Amino acid sequence: MRTCPVSALCDFAVSAFVVCGLDAEDALKATEALCFADLRGNTTHGTFNLTTIYAPRLIDRRISAQQGPSSVVVDGGASVLLDGRNRLGLLVGTEAIDLAVDRARAHGVAAVAVRNSTHFGAAGFYAARAAAAGTIGIALTNCGAQAIVPPPGGIERMLGTNPIAAAAPTKGDAPFILDGSTTAVAAGKVRAAQRSGRSIPEGWLRRLDGTATTDPAAYEDGTAELAWLGGKIETGAAKGFGLGLLVELLAGALPGAALGTSADERADHDVGHFFLAINPAAFSGAAAFTTAADTALARIAAASPAPGADRVRYPGMIEAERFEHALAHGAELSADVATALDELAAQLDLAPIAWTE
Amino acid sequence: MRTCPVSALCDFAVSAFVVCGLDAEDALKATEALCFADLRGNTTHGTFNLTTIYAPRLIDRRISAQQGPSSVVVDGGASVLLDGRNRLGLLVGTEAIDLAVDRARAHGVAAVAVRNSTHFGAAGFYAARAAAAGTIGIALTNCGAQAIVPPPGGIERMLGTNPIAAAAPTKGDAPFILDGSTTAVAAGKVRAAQRSGRSIPEGWLRRLDGTATTDPAAYEDGTAELAWLGGKIETGAAKGFGLGLLVELLAGALPGAALGTSADERADHDVGHFFLAINPAAFSGAAAFTTAADTALARIAAASPAPGADRVRYPGMIEAERFEHALAHGAELSADVATALDELAAQLDLAPIAWTE
Repeated sequence: MRTCPVSALCDFAVSAFVVCGLDAEDALKATEALCFADLRGNTTHGTFNLTTIYAPRLIDRRISAQQGPSSVVVDGGASVLLDGRNRLGLLVGTEAIDLAVDRARAHGVAAVAVRNSTHFGAAGFYAARAAAAGTIGIALTNCGAQAIVPPPGGIERMLGTNPIAAAAPTKGDAPFILDGSTTAVAAGKVRAAQRSGRSIPEGWLRRLDGTATTDPAAYEDGTAELAWLGGKIETGAAKGFGLGLLVELLAGALPGAALGTSADERADHDVGHFFLAINPAAFSGAAAFTTAADTALARIAAASPAPGADRVRYPGMIEAERFEHALAHGAELSADVATALDELAAQLDLAPIAWTE
Repeated sequence: MRTCPVSALCDFAVSAFVVCGLDAEDALKATEALCFADLRGNTTHGTFNLTTIYAPRLIDRRISAQQGPSSVVVDGGASVLLDGRNRLGLLVGTEAIDLAVDRARAHGVAAVAVRNSTHFGAAGFYAARAAAAGTIGIALTNCGAQAIVPPPGGIERMLGTNPIAAAAPTKGDAPFILDGSTTAVAAGKVRAAQRSGRSIPEGWLRRLDGTATTDPAAYEDGTAELAWLGGKIETGAAKGFGLGLLVELLAGALPGAALGTSADERADHDVGHFFLAINPAAFSGAAAFTTAADTALARIAAASPAPGADRVRYPGMIEAERFEHALAHGAELSADVATALDELAAQLDLAPIAWTE
């Protein structure tokens, strides 16, 4: 692991985005979305993507560095369809969830669907942003036309890893933030294990004959496929696949974005997102909701651990602990991510991050 | 298996509901929701629940047989909070999803949350009803204060099996209908195996020491717990749990219903639901959406099967095939369900169903 102050990581990201063509305000906004993941231990969805996705594509103009906002295609008040104009998904997504929150304040609920966007990073950032603004937030994205996972019982890769993120406004220290692919794990976690020379747990990848493999290289070489959440058919793979397909319909078909099933060559251009914000004040009341949610979450966090478990956690707790740790002790990135950031610095003619360890 | 004409099953359910105190219109409406599951092979969520939940509780007045409608607690146009007045969840849910569809036609999206309801059967019925009316439908329910599943790493049962259902309007023969608990399976599937003397697949139940068991009796005797969707922690159990907790927040905390974490004695009184309807006409257009969705679903259904698989299916396909089969050849119920229905007939002084096989 390599460590640097949080400010050093963020300053580097801002500088890199500016060199890649973003204006200063957009660079700051994109960095906030980008670093959210790194500072919470989700390092496959943070600055590593700056080196593999955002910087190279801004430079070769596969992603537009033009300023916002997204075009409003249809505005129904509680429902809005946006065209992201092929800008950075980190920016398009941030603006879209903010719009959803505003509209939910007026209507109780609001849905913002987006087409013609690009990779938006960690879905949890957008859901958490809605929750910080006092609404329940849900953020979904498809993966454009990228075909990453076959349907259960199928051979051809046909869908993205289509994550679901959700967060709720709470008063407690650690908000509820759920963020996960509808597959057992995101493809990035398999690739990270491969880069680090680690084996992977049984159940992440499945060979065509149904057997499991712990070799992460089997994904890249095409001899094994990502398992859906649920694992085998008899333990719920159809549910994980069904949730992934629901994300494809809401974030892809609803806004009219590219679909994983389209098997075209646009790959991850024309990515689609779907954001939902729900205002508790329009239902049982903001205070009643946060009291009920806080009580439920506190009961879970105080539950007796089973033998072998240190404690019981709800989604968002361990990420909040890691965020506090990063603020106090610096951001921790694996050696391969640090190296990639150093290489990007050299490529962009920027000072490299001053790693403290 | 026992077989009877679909009309015989439905007629019996209507008669039973009337004997239990519903008026004729409500009895018909409740039967439509009730039989949806049986006719699609989901026999743990159909008329069997009439014998174990609906009839006994209507008779002893734990569920109210009063006529509707539900009370409107807050009406924000696109967002509505209803009080189900402790009526049959089958009726409360049907009325609530119809309201969500109406409001989504006006606002593009609508959310209806419900408190003080009761067990509403198969969540898929409500989502499918919204889709049949031209909107994307999502239906969630908590299980009231029933504590059925411990959080990962915990000992105490703290949440319900909290299902997620979703359906989309399509032109094809089999609409997309997803309906599943956020656990590996619903508790009813374990109990059904126990009644039939069958063992269960590895992965449904997990003993406290983490080992799997294939004995369904281990759930009722408390020596094993339902696994969350995702199975073990390293294969995504936190995601299944997180989705279950999201359902608890949206269907329980948002409307102010009883929560599984409350550990009170009301059990499954004050159940909460959450319904969302999204009108594709307010986004890329109704025709554009159904064309995109149909194309994606058709590609999946036409995908090459892996060795050992007969064909590739999306959620809703096999249910549509079973529904067609039931209409042509009769409803098929397992022997224990048929016996329970015969016993209910005797108890209610009704003619038993004339089983044809």
